[in-house]
Amino acid sequence: MFVHRKETIMPVNVGAPDARFGQYLLEQFGGATGELTAALQYWVQSFHVTDPALRDMLQDIAMEEFSHLEMVGKLIVQHTAKVDQTPVYDAPLFQMKGVGPHLVDSQGSAWTATYVQEGGNVIRDLRANISAEAGARQTYEALIKRCEDQGTKQVLTHLLTREVTHAQMFMKALDSMGKLDDPMFGTISPDDTVNVVFNLSHGDDHRGPWNEGKIYNGQSFDYIEDPQPRGQIPPSPINPDDEKISRKSK
Amino acid sequence: MFVHRKETIMPVNVGAPDARFGQYLLEQFGGATGELTAALQYWVQSFHVTDPALRDMLQDIAMEEFSHLEMVGKLIVQHTAKVDQTPVYDAPLFQMKGVGPHLVDSQGSAWTATYVQEGGNVIRDLRANISAEAGARQTYEALIKRCEDQGTKQVLTHLLTREVTHAQMFMKALDSMGKLDDPMFGTISPDDTVNVVFNLSHGDDHRGPWNEGKIYNGQSFDYIEDPQPRGQIPPSPINPDDEKISRKSK
Amino acid sequence: MFVHRKETIMPVNVGAPDARFGQYLLEQFGGATGELTAALQYWVQSFHVTDPALRDMLQDIAMEEFSHLEMVGKLIVQHTAKVDQTPVYDAPLFQMKGVGPHLVDSQGSAWTATYVQEGGNVIRDLRANISAEAGARQTYEALIKRCEDQGTKQVLTHLLTREVTHAQMFMKALDSMGKLDDPMFGTISPDDTVNVVFNLSHGDDHRGPWNEGKIYNGQSFDYIEDPQPRGQIPPSPINPDDEKISRKSK
Amino acid sequence: MFVHRKETIMPVNVGAPDARFGQYLLEQFGGATGELTAALQYWVQSFHVTDPALRDMLQDIAMEEFSHLEMVGKLIVQHTAKVDQTPVYDAPLFQMKGVGPHLVDSQGSAWTATYVQEGGNVIRDLRANISAEAGARQTYEALIKRCEDQGTKQVLTHLLTREVTHAQMFMKALDSMGKLDDPMFGTISPDDTVNVVFNLSHGDDHRGPWNEGKIYNGQSFDYIEDPQPRGQIPPSPINPDDEKISRKSK
Amino acid sequence: MFVHRKETIMPVNVGAPDARFGQYLLEQFGGATGELTAALQYWVQSFHVTDPALRDMLQDIAMEEFSHLEMVGKLIVQHTAKVDQTPVYDAPLFQMKGVGPHLVDSQGSAWTATYVQEGGNVIRDLRANISAEAGARQTYEALIKRCEDQGTKQVLTHLLTREVTHAQMFMKALDSMGKLDDPMFGTISPDDTVNVVFNLSHGDDHRGPWNEGKIYNGQSFDYIEDPQPRGQIPPSPINPDDEKISRKSK
Amino acid sequence: MFVHRKETIMPVNVGAPDARFGQYLLEQFGGATGELTAALQYWVQSFHVTDPALRDMLQDIAMEEFSHLEMVGKLIVQHTAKVDQTPVYDAPLFQMKGVGPHLVDSQGSAWTATYVQEGGNVIRDLRANISAEAGARQTYEALIKRCEDQGTKQVLTHLLTREVTHAQMFMKALDSMGKLDDPMFGTISPDDTVNVVFNLSHGDDHRGPWNEGKIYNGQSFDYIEDPQPRGQIPPSPINPDDEKISRKSK
Repeated sequence: MFVHRKETIMPVNVGAPDARFGQYLLEQFGGATGELTAALQYWVQSFHVTDPALRDMLQDIAMEEFSHLEMVGKLIVQHTAKVDQTPVYDAPLFQMKGVGPHLVDSQGSAWTATYVQEGGNVIRDLRANISAEAGARQTYEALIKRCEDQGTKQVLTHLLTREVTHAQMFMKALDSMGKLDDPMFGTISPDDTVNVVFNLSHGDDHRGPWNEGKIYNGQSFDYIEDPQPRGQIPPSPINPDDEKISRKSK
Repeated sequence: MFVHRKETIMPVNVGAPDARFGQYLLEQFGGATGELTAALQYWVQSFHVTDPALRDMLQDIAMEEFSHLEMVGKLIVQHTAKVDQTPVYDAPLFQMKGVGPHLVDSQGSAWTATYVQEGGNVIRDLRANISAEAGARQTYEALIKRCEDQGTKQVLTHLLTREVTHAQMFMKALDSMGKLDDPMFGTISPDDTVNVVFNLSHGDDHRGPWNEGKIYNGQSFDYIEDPQPRGQIPPSPINPDDEKISRKSK
Repeated sequence: MFVHRKETIMPVNVGAPDARFGQYLLEQFGGATGELTAALQYWVQSFHVTDPALRDMLQDIAMEEFSHLEMVGKLIVQHTAKVDQTPVYDAPLFQMKGVGPHLVDSQGSAWTATYVQEGGNVIRDLRANISAEAGARQTYEALIKRCEDQGTKQVLTHLLTREVTHAQMFMKALDSMGKLDDPMFGTISPDDTVNVVFNLSHGDDHRGPWNEGKIYNGQSFDYIEDPQPRGQIPPSPINPDDEKISRKSK
Repeated sequence: MFVHRKETIMPVNVGAPDARFGQYLLEQFGGATGELTAALQYWVQSFHVTDPALRDMLQDIAMEEFSHLEMVGKLIVQHTAKVDQTPVYDAPLFQMKGVGPHLVDSQGSAWTATYVQEGGNVIRDLRANISAEAGARQTYEALIKRCEDQGTKQVLTHLLTREVTHAQMFMKALDSMGKLDDPMFGTISPDDTVNVVFNLSHGDDHRGPWNEGKIYNGQSFDYIEDPQPRGQIPPSPINPDDEKISRKSK
Repeated sequence: MFVHRKETIMPVNVGAPDARFGQYLLEQFGGATGELTAALQYWVQSFHVTDPALRDMLQDIAMEEFSHLEMVGKLIVQHTAKVDQTPVYDAPLFQMKGVGPHLVDSQGSAWTATYVQEGGNVIRDLRANISAEAGARQTYEALIKRCEDQGTKQVLTHLLTREVTHAQMFMKALDSMGKLDDPMFGTISPDDTVNVVFNLSHGDDHRGPWNEGKIYNGQSFDYIEDPQPRGQIPPSPINPDDEKISRKSK
Repeated sequence: MFVHRKETIMPVNVGAPDARFGQYLLEQFGGATGELTAALQYWVQSFHVTDPALRDMLQDIAMEEFSHLEMVGKLIVQHTAKVDQTPVYDAPLFQMKGVGPHLVDSQGSAWTATYVQEGGNVIRDLRANISAEAGARQTYEALIKRCEDQGTKQVLTHLLTREVTHAQMFMKALDSMGKLDDPMFGTISPDDTVNVVFNLSHGDDHRGPWNEGKIYNGQSFDYIEDPQPRGQIPPSPINPDDEKISRKSK
């Protein structure tokens, strides 16, 4: 059951409203890396996660992300308060859709659940979450760098901070299962190519810890400098709908 | 510059074609966790990554993922070879669109670039990639568990294996930068709430390494059992387009 | 601020799990008429609504819809508990994405914010909400008619009931503003065609209360049986990019 | 069968072309609240509506909306006539796609049939239509307020007017069935919670006609000030794909 | 201005309704190659085409395609008339959305204007139209091959026939401008690589009229068997947001 | 198998970076007519094409289009190199997502596989490809006309040139099969309406080679000036979910 309190989880005060900046803020309301993505991703994951403690963590953080979505929305409300005094061709999204937040990104693309990554196995979910937090942090940094209003900046810095905290939590959870630095999970064993690395982009080649030295199960990477195909040319397609071709001789 | 060799990077041989299984395979051709998502994600990232060695790694793996996309496509070609002898209401996607792979998932939803996570900072990109590999591995496991054809299974196991290898490579890269177990990156410092954890989902509460013990900068998590809002009720919206309301008394 | 309690707002008990019915239930989790659409529609509206009482109502109902989304999700969790014992080509969505709810509809299409209707003026919002409730009710009726599990049916009947309640509330709100049976709102006055009705689809024509009798401002409908265009053929486009055409004579 | 006359249903004359305003006009050509949405919504509904008189009404109005779509398109043609003399970074959509209307909204998002609300029961359809008309009217008001060209304004005012007329017609139709102020329709009876109202968003609470006084079936609203969950914590998910977790002790 | 007659342009009579086949028919109602795509593509093109005769042709055919969309819809109405007597898990789309056509394809994906190809120059438009007709014809062939109802088959054969007619018309139009076999149009002259052909996919190589013999401007194709890059490795990206990397030595 | 060389297929040198022009260039990276659409369209087609020579051609051109995608991306990298010195509200897409290309068009809409046209029969595929090349050429012309940087212009002119070459190749292939000027393909014979042309848009009517003179099979077009419906009004829908209507008499 959801309960809401009308006070925000942290204070939200905008000094100088700017509808153009409000349009940028939509990136974290209805955009790919925004709070709705995070809230729904963690919450949907919580339905299929077997471990009750991890499930509890996911639900706690989901609720915080919903509360952050609210904060971003309240920032946008304040930034769009004077949209009718804004030049007609500035902040076009609010000119057409009205004040306050909408479920679109800063370019006007509607939020889509294809942004959400989840399903199957909690290791996969936690890795998706560390990724989501990194994306959100990155967009908050872009917003803060372009922000001139001190009150807004303070809110955005708090929101960025919390992405760091959540990333930390997801890392701790993975680490406690020994899965922070182990790529393997699930029940299918890899085949004998697991330590092979292919150099398939030629020119200005580099080596690094990701293609030299020890790897999974204590083996070394097996670096193939000039990979050749190991398969044949596959059989031609059998396509009953295709045209029977008799080419004209010229 | 791209060059193609018609032989596949690994052998692709289907024993018993089944168009219904072919439809499931679309999940890894045109689906969210599929090879196109991986190939394009790593390749697009390579354009903005400053470090030439990481860029080289991303390009190498992108090319392998394109080569895997080809293998999945070749599996589907063979599984759909007899679609005209399949019951009319089985494998509906191929009944309508014809043999071979199409850029949709197993439910017929078109591939969309909103599946791709990238941009800004290579730490964010690498975290997105570990997530992508985990999603791909998870779907390959689902496919292998439902697969009855030995030849197909062998290909899928190879593809699952390579996701493990790539995840390993991305982990090694992050680890070499000290960022595998450190949530921080970028240039904005977090505020003083970075060690706070909120219990916002009540009932059957649990503690674990993610909300107790040491955290970022050596501090301990500060667990708030019953969080209260720290903000006020924000000011009412100023909406010039809204209806001026005079409610009828009854 | 959002707070969550792990108990559901109403009991959720499935008797006989059936993953195929679980796939139908997705229609109300991640589908057009589902609970996510309702929850987000009302909640996003609440940001721009000026009247505090209507805003409060929207937030109250939004929270209930989030709580309903949770109930639908919990139904799906129980219906998919045995997905690994389900025939391989039944309930294909869960076969690929795993147990529990996902943010897609029963056909596998991802939820999109284009389902949400809101913006500008609270009269428009309330009308959108009465529509949303009608759509949700309709889908619940379709589900109940196809449902064989008593426990599931009871939950679905409750959810249908609440759509009736919410529709009632939105109607009462509109009525208190005199806008339930008055099409006008906003600040732009209509022109003198407001009472004209065009018969533009010919054959088997019918008249009814919608094109005969009194209408807006006490006038009568002005029924045009065989409408003729009142405009001219508009001027030809000026397209600098278009081909300069000199047609071959044959 | 469709027949077209090249004259427009009403005159369309633009005084001073402005490609930037043309881009805003796309909102009503290929946008969510635009004429294509209305035309297709009513027309698709007409296929499944049993009552021949309501079906006729839906077809009449659908044809008018197609004729309105044409008028909006003709406005855009005239507003974009000088796009090659417009500053290179103004009206970017036409700079890239050329003069005339395209099936996108003012932000460049492609029209999608997810905007259309229809199906099942004509009561639901009519409610969806009142909502669609309100959305269209709202956008026309936004356009008119930002419009400086008298000829354009006159067209837009006509189009707004017709939305009022159509809303009137849909209201009359619902009213003739006794469904304008009755939330119930269909064949499923609500359960005994139909008169309960939950206060789930706390702080600055308000009462109004929507949560006090008489309601459905002559009963009074039963207002629950501090709702408690009536369900238990649902059983844990059974997820065969999930990781078997043994957490490291530290 | 649009006018509608309730009789269909050609007769539509279904013998034996089958909701499963009705779901396939959606491919031509709300699918990529369907009648809505064709109708809207030609009609939207007509707004920007300068030549009045070509514009007239586009409008004539658009109206016929709208009339075909109606015929497909009427087929679906008849095929879904007994959906409530259909097994619960057959034809799932109609089970959830009700009888009659909906704006989705046979897989339930909503129609999107991204299917429509138009803009800029009428040569481009006409080529897009020949392509659209070919796609529509292909889907009608797939439907006819899977259809067992004689009445339905007759309608589908008529619709396929008309795609042939329209393709013929578009070809005649292009040919009259000398553009059916001339790839050039517009105002930009090609550079000196216009006759070069690259063999970039190696193995089982073939030559044919497309890479040997005469080409544009009477020159011969210049076939490059083993193409080498003509550019350098481009400069590294300058990404101010990227991580400054100091890699740990192991 | 895919292999990559880090040198570009043709040189890519930007003189004066302009992030605003970089945003326009996205149209050909992640837009409808862009290189990704072309590359994936031809490559996906190659899986189901039976004729090995045509398959080889499709794969050759697909690889070139991937190499062109890379060139467009490298242009964007250079144009966005100074995005942090660009006014905050210019080039908003890069302000939010960072330097380098992203898989969106110039309006920020994500690339979608619905842009891709393929399937079933190679004649259909080749016609789709001639259309795709025309769309790409058109956008390159729009870009070149708006471009002030000489280096960029040179690259764009090369890319436009290659679209002409590819269109030529596809035309030659169709012509060698006798299908460039013959609308028929596949196995279903048209019915006896194949030579009929309907005048369905009235006013300012025109005749031309597309509706007069000889047509398919040597017959003449049969021009119907004022078409009448040949079908009846179809039977009313049978909709078990619809409301039983008893209209109030007033």
